[in-house]
Amino acid sequence: MTDARQPGATMLAEIGEQPDVLARVLDAGGAAARAAAAEIRSRAPRAVLFAARGTSDHAALYAKYLVEVRLGLPAGLMSPSTMTAYGARPDLRDVLVVAVSQSGGSPDLVETVTVARECGATILSVTNAPASELATAAHLSLDVHAGPELAVAATKSYTAELLTLWLTIDAWAGGDGAAAAAVPAAARSHVDRLAEMSALAQRYRFTDRMVLTGRGYSYPTAREAALKLMETSYVAAHAFSGADLLHGPLAMIDADHPVVAVVPDGVGAAAMRPVLERLRDGGIDVAVLGGAESVALGTVGVPLDHGLPEELSPIADIVLLQQLALVMATDRGHDPDSPRGLSKVTRTW
Amino acid sequence: MTDARQPGATMLAEIGEQPDVLARVLDAGGAAARAAAAEIRSRAPRAVLFAARGTSDHAALYAKYLVEVRLGLPAGLMSPSTMTAYGARPDLRDVLVVAVSQSGGSPDLVETVTVARECGATILSVTNAPASELATAAHLSLDVHAGPELAVAATKSYTAELLTLWLTIDAWAGGDGAAAAAVPAAARSHVDRLAEMSALAQRYRFTDRMVLTGRGYSYPTAREAALKLMETSYVAAHAFSGADLLHGPLAMIDADHPVVAVVPDGVGAAAMRPVLERLRDGGIDVAVLGGAESVALGTVGVPLDHGLPEELSPIADIVLLQQLALVMATDRGHDPDSPRGLSKVTRTW
Repeated sequence: MTDARQPGATMLAEIGEQPDVLARVLDAGGAAARAAAAEIRSRAPRAVLFAARGTSDHAALYAKYLVEVRLGLPAGLMSPSTMTAYGARPDLRDVLVVAVSQSGGSPDLVETVTVARECGATILSVTNAPASELATAAHLSLDVHAGPELAVAATKSYTAELLTLWLTIDAWAGGDGAAAAAVPAAARSHVDRLAEMSALAQRYRFTDRMVLTGRGYSYPTAREAALKLMETSYVAAHAFSGADLLHGPLAMIDADHPVVAVVPDGVGAAAMRPVLERLRDGGIDVAVLGGAESVALGTVGVPLDHGLPEELSPIADIVLLQQLALVMATDRGHDPDSPRGLSKVTRTW
Repeated sequence: MTDARQPGATMLAEIGEQPDVLARVLDAGGAAARAAAAEIRSRAPRAVLFAARGTSDHAALYAKYLVEVRLGLPAGLMSPSTMTAYGARPDLRDVLVVAVSQSGGSPDLVETVTVARECGATILSVTNAPASELATAAHLSLDVHAGPELAVAATKSYTAELLTLWLTIDAWAGGDGAAAAAVPAAARSHVDRLAEMSALAQRYRFTDRMVLTGRGYSYPTAREAALKLMETSYVAAHAFSGADLLHGPLAMIDADHPVVAVVPDGVGAAAMRPVLERLRDGGIDVAVLGGAESVALGTVGVPLDHGLPEELSPIADIVLLQQLALVMATDRGHDPDSPRGLSKVTRTW
């Protein structure tokens, strides 16, 4: 399946590169992340705002949780249009703005960062393009070292962004980064489970909608998996945090449509337990990616046994769902390497 | 259709109450909003965070845009689980936390607000229940005066939240609130367009998925309309900001599934123009709620001629989409007054 003419061959190859990419982030990117963290710490920001779109927005959401939990700083996701379209000029002194983008070329992000800098913010860019406009517009820039990403559906740049953000925030919080050493092997163990994800894709062969759910650090995983499914297999995939799922969207779920729950062991899994119980009691078909206790509450189990702490689990877990999206697309005769209507760098006005 | 035994009769009645509710917000709520604004201004917060779930989260998102554009303050939506599940204790001195909730009884919001207060935040609650736990836990509380809301799908509490938030932020920004006087009549003019929305619902009788889109102030309208559709008619409705739509989800849209674009005249409509052109060029069926220029780019036009400024337009515009959701549900034989799987106060653990 590495023949470039095979549908999805490029995406499959890039999914498979992730263990090596993540090892490269640790080797080539670790020192830069620590240096950026030291510089940020010396500036002592009192809040963190993230600017990103699409897949990178999910990396930003992951980092928002990390900033809130590990650093105890208020954090938020920016609405770029308030500055680029409505002309807002917020007071951003003492604010760190983190712009996350694979290409570093999205015009509205460049404009957002430029305006935010004029408004007093310290800017950190996290991109796969160290010479990009976005990186140039920032005070501090980190390269995620994913290498050229050719598939339209981003995979390796996403996990490289997650790990780069984790390394930076962990160092900022005074951590030694040691836990991340296990991430490349965990990603490898998930790359090796393609057959298992292909079997799960078979189960979903004829569904036209899905719901993905998770809580805390794994909510961004649910969001990113839903986006991958939408952009490759065209399934109407919704993502809800476990908490929001009970506020309305639950009505949309019935026994004819599947749910995928991402619940690696930890605080998020404990918070998800009543959600899983309610879905089970409603007769809903739920595939659970998680530890033994969570898997026991699902219809289908995808055990997570990589041993990573909850915080780092999303970097490995998304690999399984990238594979699910890829196989669901190719099974339906779509080529995820050339999804309809998309180009790699999206120009937003 | 006001017979209580008619499916959706309660929701329909509450949609119809909105002009009176909004007039009550102006009369009974205006002074309280101005007083809260004066107190907040004296505390001079440097950032605003919102805590909300479900429908109220969309009111919070609307207010986030207002805070950024009108007040020039950084703003964000809180992830309650970081404080309630992960034990985060962020430094929230100089931060205003605005908690928005119809019932004021959601346990995780009460806990979030309690912790945020311990962390130094000033708390403003905006609820339809002035004696609720949430209101009691806040420094300042505003009643949205919607009256008892019996339908499970929130309608009048949403528009009452929007107007209460607008009045507060407008006063905080030094405005005189005068523009809001036209809101009740604008809402009335939309209540009177039920037949037109019923005809649009006919067009969507057999679709199982829809995409809602908007930008800036109207993005929350798209989000709220999607939620209403999901919880009443069970259609898989996605909402995307016009900008995000071009990053991936566009692949999910095809000529067989409709798009509804909310583009009242203003800055957001200008930013949406290239999105509408791209959808038109792709042969997508788009119903445009907007001014004449925007409507001309759509397949179906729903002219917005209430004359409200862009900032206030969402309070009237959602009325049309509440009616669309209601009729789509009843046309399919569902009773939106008792959607499956939902209760009015959601307990999130």
